[in-house]
Amino acid sequence: MDADIDADRAAVAAANQAFYDAFEAGSKEALFEIWEHSDRAQCTHPGWPILRGWDDVGASWAAIIDGPQQLQFVLTNERVEVEGDVGWVTVDENLLSNMGGGTVSAVNVFTRMADGWKMVSHHGSSVLPDLRR
Amino acid sequence: MDADIDADRAAVAAANQAFYDAFEAGSKEALFEIWEHSDRAQCTHPGWPILRGWDDVGASWAAIIDGPQQLQFVLTNERVEVEGDVGWVTVDENLLSNMGGGTVSAVNVFTRMADGWKMVSHHGSSVLPDLRR
Repeated sequence: MDADIDADRAAVAAANQAFYDAFEAGSKEALFEIWEHSDRAQCTHPGWPILRGWDDVGASWAAIIDGPQQLQFVLTNERVEVEGDVGWVTVDENLLSNMGGGTVSAVNVFTRMADGWKMVSHHGSSVLPDLRR
Repeated sequence: MDADIDADRAAVAAANQAFYDAFEAGSKEALFEIWEHSDRAQCTHPGWPILRGWDDVGASWAAIIDGPQQLQFVLTNERVEVEGDVGWVTVDENLLSNMGGGTVSAVNVFTRMADGWKMVSHHGSSVLPDLRR
């Protein structure tokens, strides 16, 4: 049981890392592969309202990846939880970019599908500099 | 199966509503009752870094409820998903307060425990006025 949980946690952590690797590499194909393409896919970018459904979520990521920002992530403070077929990861995205840096706190939800763990929800929000630890 | 999922969704929606009712009523006791008091409890308030563990999470809610803001919530755009023993809710918290209003987009994660669905993760972030729909 504990070994299974450790393996599940490692698999969710790997899916989460693959998401940020795809983002950093600017690969829409790789980033889309991480996501569940369904109505329940949802995403809240920093300062944005909730986007629901893969059509809107995927379009937002396509626009971000096609945009002018070149991002590099240093992930810190990661924590992975798994309960059955659902995993959730909280992590600080420390961003270095050609348009300035900052820290975004994120919570990512994954579900176990036939072809691996897929992201169904991403929510990121900017950490105010005064509150950064 | 579908009836079970509908019942689970309704139960998660009720737990989510109870959280906001407790917050609006300023009842620490009721709000604490909704949360899982564990190491994996985590919370990101708007603009804040991630808080981990019930001690820090609970202390933050105690400070907010003991604070000067009187909040009223109008919840819109709610969506509830359940997979096994995990539920997640995304919702817009439209806030009316004696210190101004605004919209916070939130994602709340619940797990099914012996005594009902308990919140294990809350992440809220302010929606920028220009991006509000």
